[in-house]
Amino acid sequence: MQKFGGTSVADPDRIRAVADHVVATHNAGSEVCVVVSAMGKATDELVRLAHDVSKNPAGRELDMLLTAGERISMSLLCMAIIDRGVHAVSFTGSQAGIVTDTVHGKAKILEVKGDRIREVLAEGGIAVVAGFQGISTSRDITTLGRGGSDTTAVALAAALEAETCEIYTDVPGIFTADPRIVPNATKLERVSYDEMLEMAATGGRVLALRSVEFARNYGVPVHVRSSFTWEHGTWVVEEDPSMEQAVISGITHEASEAKVTITRVDDRPGVAARLFRALANSEINVDMIVQNVSTEGHTDISFTVPESDLARTIEVAEKIAGEVGASGVSQDSDIARVSVIGAGMRSNPGIAAQMFEVLSEEGVNILMISTSSIRISCVVRAGDVEKAVRSLHAAFGLDAE
Amino acid sequence: MQKFGGTSVADPDRIRAVADHVVATHNAGSEVCVVVSAMGKATDELVRLAHDVSKNPAGRELDMLLTAGERISMSLLCMAIIDRGVHAVSFTGSQAGIVTDTVHGKAKILEVKGDRIREVLAEGGIAVVAGFQGISTSRDITTLGRGGSDTTAVALAAALEAETCEIYTDVPGIFTADPRIVPNATKLERVSYDEMLEMAATGGRVLALRSVEFARNYGVPVHVRSSFTWEHGTWVVEEDPSMEQAVISGITHEASEAKVTITRVDDRPGVAARLFRALANSEINVDMIVQNVSTEGHTDISFTVPESDLARTIEVAEKIAGEVGASGVSQDSDIARVSVIGAGMRSNPGIAAQMFEVLSEEGVNILMISTSSIRISCVVRAGDVEKAVRSLHAAFGLDAE
Repeated sequence: MQKFGGTSVADPDRIRAVADHVVATHNAGSEVCVVVSAMGKATDELVRLAHDVSKNPAGRELDMLLTAGERISMSLLCMAIIDRGVHAVSFTGSQAGIVTDTVHGKAKILEVKGDRIREVLAEGGIAVVAGFQGISTSRDITTLGRGGSDTTAVALAAALEAETCEIYTDVPGIFTADPRIVPNATKLERVSYDEMLEMAATGGRVLALRSVEFARNYGVPVHVRSSFTWEHGTWVVEEDPSMEQAVISGITHEASEAKVTITRVDDRPGVAARLFRALANSEINVDMIVQNVSTEGHTDISFTVPESDLARTIEVAEKIAGEVGASGVSQDSDIARVSVIGAGMRSNPGIAAQMFEVLSEEGVNILMISTSSIRISCVVRAGDVEKAVRSLHAAFGLDAE
Repeated sequence: MQKFGGTSVADPDRIRAVADHVVATHNAGSEVCVVVSAMGKATDELVRLAHDVSKNPAGRELDMLLTAGERISMSLLCMAIIDRGVHAVSFTGSQAGIVTDTVHGKAKILEVKGDRIREVLAEGGIAVVAGFQGISTSRDITTLGRGGSDTTAVALAAALEAETCEIYTDVPGIFTADPRIVPNATKLERVSYDEMLEMAATGGRVLALRSVEFARNYGVPVHVRSSFTWEHGTWVVEEDPSMEQAVISGITHEASEAKVTITRVDDRPGVAARLFRALANSEINVDMIVQNVSTEGHTDISFTVPESDLARTIEVAEKIAGEVGASGVSQDSDIARVSVIGAGMRSNPGIAAQMFEVLSEEGVNILMISTSSIRISCVVRAGDVEKAVRSLHAAFGLDAE
């Protein structure tokens, strides 16, 4: 399984280069199924057109529109492959048998049939499949949302029992931190599914969260690599307990979030449930949630949401605050989150303390803290985030030598 | 049934204007099914991309690619309609149940199911259908070739038993001649299927030949009209023998043909059959065929083909000429054809004579002649064609008063 993102098929030159690579893999004796995204900025352009003709584009029609993007890239790639003398057939999500639920814009895959793909592979051909799309149980065209093509590739790899799922992109792999901020960040040779999940959830932009969940659930080995240099990239695989591993795999950051605090909430059961149910019903993705210890029967609840959801969040939060008798709602969008991730953290106590010490030495104030077994995240002032990432990267021994 | 061509949906402004019109028709109490072409030059751009990645784009993949064009225009139009408060659902050719044969690039419609369209209409909604495309009996996406969207519209109108099929385009209807050449050409109020067929076959570019054949075979009344002025256009309908009719309905011309002559062919059975079978097998559309009377056991066979097919035609003709012992093959692409069309010709002898007289008076030399019961065509020098059209238009009383 090979998946090529939008930058990898952005123009005819890139498409021909990808065709060369796909054919070379095929000629080396592998069965190849290819998943493609839309060319370059094609999806963004279609979204712009939609908003030009409609104030609020209907979900079903928007999905119908957007799927034209992969249709174009996959048929062009398929032609280029056929030109190189190899039998190849392109398939839409529907033809590939990617069956989803009926939630337009972010459909979930329910089933992957793949019969027609298997036929082409059995004939010795290459199957080229449109990413990001499927057909719903009510026979409508759906899209899988951001990063949907990665999810298509991993789901197909699972269904076809592919040996690997190669995700080709415009960077050479997964790095210990964003190289634009930490110039001596290093490429990871391998990272576990759990670490990758934490990275994807906390600002790592290379792989979409859902595709990593899929890969973990079905045990699909994912190889993230560059379609520009074709060098070996990063393997995302099952954690191997027998291997010595680095305590910390990477530092991620996310600046597009905002913090909301509801102050002086009665500390009694059900208040938090009510708030977060209301936010969920409004389709707001709450990220971190921190509740302070109770003082005199009252507590503060803080949480972060994507900045784009802030206005709606405040609306919901103020309504609930009024109903439960909280003293007020405050917001702060001048924040960022920095996270330290590593499966080795489980057997190495003291990582949190070390992280707080490093930030303190740098004069970075910590606004919120949350942890999982393999991650520690701190919300800091937006202006401090680059300094925080660089100092943590150095302190945890990740700088390239 | 309303069909909108590429210029009618060329940009977001035009799409919104079309949406207004469709919704107005719906609100006036009609059930509306809409067929759309791709936006403006979208199809040409996709073809260019295909040739950019492939020397000889595979037919199946080219069809997959091109159908993205209507997918985009139909979903945009559908969104714009929904924005106006009317229930609307878009359907690809496949979803609309347009079943074709497996000839990619010029598939023939075998069956029109239309179940999902009927459902939407029964719910009081508007169905928006992608023109030009279908799904083959082997479940591959196909396109219907040039003018395919007109064919989709007429075929759907027949299947849905629509009262009319309105073909919206960038001209106000069918004219007595091309207004760019004859400024005082007039718009026809109505024209019979047979006349329209002859016009479409001899250079009239407004309606595609196949769509007219479909309309005639299923008795679908077609109304050709403008999506820019929205004025009443031209009805293409069954000939009404009870009505007094003009002897001549229009003058058409076609300049993109070339003449090929095979000289001194043995005048014996089977020679012409062999030649034209070979041309048909090479997918060359031969238009006029003229064979002169035999002189001393030999004859000349002349025929016209689209200029784009000339090179291949010469190749085939020279091969056959050698096999049958003809003296040679000559070609002439500096020609044009002018045709006089009118159902009234059947009951008015002498039209041919009048046509030849008019051309003779203008000093236009006639190179080839062919006739049907309602059409007379003359091949003339390319440089003479505009003069020929204008003088015939005046002589047959078609000039606007």
